[in-house]
This record gives sequence, C-alpha cells and structure tokens, in this order.
Amino acid sequence: MLVTDLVNVRYLSGFTGSNAALLVFADDRGAVLATDGRYRTQAARQAPDVELAIERACGRHLAEHAAAAGVRRLGFESHVVTVDGHAALSAALTAAGSTELVRASQTVEALREIKDAGEVALLRLACEAADAALADLVALGGLRPGRTEREVGRELEALMLDHGADGVSFETIVATGTNSAIPHHRPTDAELAVGDFVKIDFGALVGGYHSDMTRTFVLGKAADWQREIYELVSAAQRAGRHALAAGADLAAVDAAARGMIADAGHGAHFGHGLGHGVGLQIHEAPGINATAAGTLLPGSVVTVEPGVYLPDRGGVRIEDTLVVADESPGHAPELLTRFPKELAVLG
Amino acid sequence: MLVTDLVNVRYLSGFTGSNAALLVFADDRGAVLATDGRYRTQAARQAPDVELAIERACGRHLAEHAAAAGVRRLGFESHVVTVDGHAALSAALTAAGSTELVRASQTVEALREIKDAGEVALLRLACEAADAALADLVALGGLRPGRTEREVGRELEALMLDHGADGVSFETIVATGTNSAIPHHRPTDAELAVGDFVKIDFGALVGGYHSDMTRTFVLGKAADWQREIYELVSAAQRAGRHALAAGADLAAVDAAARGMIADAGHGAHFGHGLGHGVGLQIHEAPGINATAAGTLLPGSVVTVEPGVYLPDRGGVRIEDTLVVADESPGHAPELLTRFPKELAVLG
Repeated sequence: MLVTDLVNVRYLSGFTGSNAALLVFADDRGAVLATDGRYRTQAARQAPDVELAIERACGRHLAEHAAAAGVRRLGFESHVVTVDGHAALSAALTAAGSTELVRASQTVEALREIKDAGEVALLRLACEAADAALADLVALGGLRPGRTEREVGRELEALMLDHGADGVSFETIVATGTNSAIPHHRPTDAELAVGDFVKIDFGALVGGYHSDMTRTFVLGKAADWQREIYELVSAAQRAGRHALAAGADLAAVDAAARGMIADAGHGAHFGHGLGHGVGLQIHEAPGINATAAGTLLPGSVVTVEPGVYLPDRGGVRIEDTLVVADESPGHAPELLTRFPKELAVLG
Repeated sequence: MLVTDLVNVRYLSGFTGSNAALLVFADDRGAVLATDGRYRTQAARQAPDVELAIERACGRHLAEHAAAAGVRRLGFESHVVTVDGHAALSAALTAAGSTELVRASQTVEALREIKDAGEVALLRLACEAADAALADLVALGGLRPGRTEREVGRELEALMLDHGADGVSFETIVATGTNSAIPHHRPTDAELAVGDFVKIDFGALVGGYHSDMTRTFVLGKAADWQREIYELVSAAQRAGRHALAAGADLAAVDAAARGMIADAGHGAHFGHGLGHGVGLQIHEAPGINATAAGTLLPGSVVTVEPGVYLPDRGGVRIEDTLVVADESPGHAPELLTRFPKELAVLG
C-alpha cells in the first residue's frame, strides 16, 4: 500500500516532515519511506527502522518502486490522492508495467481510531497542560472586563506552553458577548464586558497529540436567559458523556444530547455535530453526529461538545475530551479534560 | 466552476471558515458560497456579496445547484478534489442530470500568483513585524549561550505578536550547532553554545498573509569554515535576488544561485529549491527550482533562500521575501524582509 497522507505516514513511521510517502508491503519486505533532500538527516533520526529513499516526487517514486518489486495490486489512499495525483500515478505505473491501483480509503485512519497506551498518555499530558493553563488564567484574573479577546487568547496559549505544551492544537477561540454566538469565532480586539458570556475553545499539543476543550464563563451577574441556556447545554453535555459506551451507535450518542436541546426548543441553535475523534489530528474518526454510521470503539478518544448559539445575543458550548472504555460493565469513559464545568460567574 | 480549496474560497469570497465551497458562474449570476451551520453568522459577515447556502456537504450541494441551474460544463479543482470526492460529485451529477465535470487545475492559484496592492500591503506588514521581532530578540540578548532553541523560538513568536502579527506563518525553526545542518529542524531543548551557527527561519501572519525570512548567526568567534560557507550562501543569495526580474525563467533564477554553490563544491549540500511564492499560503506558486517551468511574473511575491548544510557540522540559510517588479528597466524587486544579512557574530 502507498500511504501519502502525511499524518498517516507519521503514524506508521514516526517521520514528521512536510513531504513524504510510505510504501508498506503486505509481506515481510517491510516499508520504504520517501522524502526529499531537506529531510535526509531528520528522516534517518525519526524513522531508523525503514528503508529511506531521497526523492522529491515521493508518491510517484514509491509507485515505481512497487512496480519494480513486482507488486501487482497497489493500494492507494483514494480519500487523499487527488484526481491529478491519481492520473500521475497511473501514468507512472503504465510506463513501469502492469501494477493496478486499488482504492484503500481510510485504512490507516481506521487503525488510528483506537489509541494505544502511549497515545493516551500523550493525550492525557496535552489535556493536563490545557487544564492547568485555564486554571492559571482564571487565578491570575485573566478574564476581566476591559481585556480583549486577543489578549486572553494569547495569555492562554502562553500558559499552555508554560505547562509543557509543544504548541497549540488549533487557533484558540475566545468569543465574548454577542461573538459567543459564533461557534468558531476568531479572537478580535473586542473587549470583555460585564454581563458577557466568554466562550473559550482551545487545546494543547504534546508529542503530536491534540487536546480539545471548551468552557463558557459569565462576567458579573448571569442573566436568566444565560443561566437557562447554560444549564441546558450542561445537561445535554452530561447526557452525551453518559452515552459514551463501546458499541453505542454514533448517531444515538449525538441524539442523547441533541434531543434535550431540541426538546427545549433550541434544536435550530445547535448547528454542528456533538463530537469527533481527536489524536494526531484535531478532527479525526469517529465523527459523532446525526448522520454518522457505525459504533463507538473501545479505546477511541472523542470530544463531547454540544452548544446553543442565539444569534446577536450569545452562545454556550461545553466540551470535554474522553477515552471510551472497554465493554465490561461499569467502565465509565476516562475524562481527560478536568477543568470544572459548573457555571462560573467571574468578578 | 466549483471551488473547493479553502484558501481559494477565501481568496475569492473573503470567507475563512474550515468547511466551504464556492460556485462561480461564468455569466452574471455571480457566486454561491456554501458552508455549514457553525458558520452562518461568520459567512454573512465575511462574504456579504455572495448568495449563502447552509449545507454540510458543501461541494456536492453546489454541484447539484449548478446542475439545477442548467450548467452543462462544471469546472472542478482536479489538483484538490480527491478520487473519492470526484466519485461523489460524479454520482450526484449523474443523479441530477447531464452536467459534465471538467478539470480546471490551478486556475485560482494562477490568479493568486500576482498580488494586488492590498495584498502587498499585508505582506509588507507581515515582513515588518518579523523584522522588528528579530531586531528586538537580538537587542534583548535573546541569542546567547545557554538558552534553548525552544526558548528562543517562543520569545521570537511572542515578539512578532507584540509587533502586530495575528499569528505565526509556520512553526518557527531555531536550529543551533549541528542541528543547523537540518534544513527544517524543529526547536528542541538543545542549548545555544559558543561557536554555534544559530539558524532561524520564521514568519509573521497578518490578515491571512505570510512572511518568510531566514537568518543565520554565529555565537562567539566564527571559525574559518563557518565564514566560508556563510559568504558562499550570502553571495549565492545575492545572485538569486539579482536574477529576480519579470520574464526571467524560473529555472534560470534557481541556477543563478545554485551554480555558485555547485562551483564551490557544495552542490550536494543544497538539497532544496531556491524559493517559492508566498501569500495566503506559506508555499504557493511559483516554485523556483531546477525543474520549474515558466517565468517570473511582475507583481509576484517570492522567497530567495539558498542554503549549504554540512551534515553533523552545521548549516547556513539566508532567505528574503521580495516583490518582483514590473518589466520597465531599472526596476529592482522590492525587498520586504529588511533585517541585515551580514554575518553577525554575537556575544
């Protein structure tokens, strides 16, 4: 199989460069990693166990390598390889002999869905760094009227690095006041003000693994409508977490939370899925949403993140990252993001 | 044409969300932007002039929209759409009628290659933020023995934000001592030491536009071999900059710098291209390398970044970002990254 997705190459080989492909034989011939000259030293360090080929056109080179090695059927990542990329591979293989390209969609992603102990350990560290950073931010008075979304985001990101993160999982979302009604708002110079919802969605990166957590605060006194939607999202989030069991239908997990929000008349204000897998990518398998097929696997790591967003008023999202337990009775999912979820009224 | 590359969607519409597609009609029917419910508010703000469709499966939805609108030939980005994505579009169009999918590779990228005045203004701001940050870092004594690569990278990134950057262009490279021989090294806890090359490749992000600059310093006294390769790379970089003229063959620009390095016996130690376009992406058209076809366009913005890397000893790269001038005689490229390039021996 020819692996050209860079995250999948990393997962299988350990190599983190920006130009690479991996040829994996089905028999004992092992694997060949191709990358270009910039990465010669790094590839030898990170992937000492695989044969190394230095070549800028990595995928085409490995396809020709497979043909020369007598491979008859070569799997390729049809969800990653573009139409033009496929045409180039086909042309190279036609020139090289009679190797057939076979679609192998999401093959490595399926392996990645179940995390091993080492992966969970890195996710745990990433979530701990995020927890500690948010605790520091609050303790230092970082969430107070007059500060800008941008300042808050920047301080939180710096605190994650202080707590051992290699970087951030994604651009931190800090959304205050009416901006909190935008599910994926980017921080601006808008100032936090008394009476605002402040929604913060952020994560730390440790050893390539991403944490993901959202908390929503209120500055000053919470209005009735704010308490109402906060408690609703909180209850829906709890229901979603309790539905996380190995073997559960993904759509049923989504429905456990979404049904409560819809029953309260806010179905139209929750316009995204309940959650997603998280690991080497911030969004990976499985998707937990209304149209998802399949079931939750033991050992998968997922988010649960319902929200209610009232346009031009404000919104709440509460999100955790959890490890789905095995199927033995009484095994609850492990909560990795442990920062409290009670409505915190600050100042 | 159906545009599914997110950067191209942003370039054409202004919308920056993570799930989107844009249908552009060849006639006066304008454009339709599709995104999902998370982005309803943001899309209306960022792209007020286009029709908005809320739908998770953006590309398929717009293909069906085109078919319903009587479109016979629908361009698609064959360098972006995957083999599986193409199959899904084909199936949707077969169900909807007789619209034919037509490959339209790199169409929007070709528009993006020439920057307008507003784009150059943002690139200039990004490069100024990077220049100012590096000047501050040096002035504050940030490059001194005992500091780690990670600390230096983090301080430099914070300084870019202080100077108005929205974020960083890419993960900052700080490579000290033998690590400087790795062209794309990621910062570690390795400490800067007297006698080290310290190579720093970094950039600031302003309004979506990326700056890109590399400088290499020596801590303490420079050894003869260090001066020798520094002067060689410096001369090659100057030659590359002087070759930047509208209409010049891209491969000839690469050769202007690479030839000097090869003549000095270091051809094998310069394993990457001379440069690349920079804009909404850190790497975009044109590529400036030995196998590039085509010519430099006036108004394009490119890097010039030769390097010499001696495995297990150390390496030097010097990189600027420049605007290619129009074809009138005497118009030199505008240098956007203005931090000095003379060998700086620190401490």
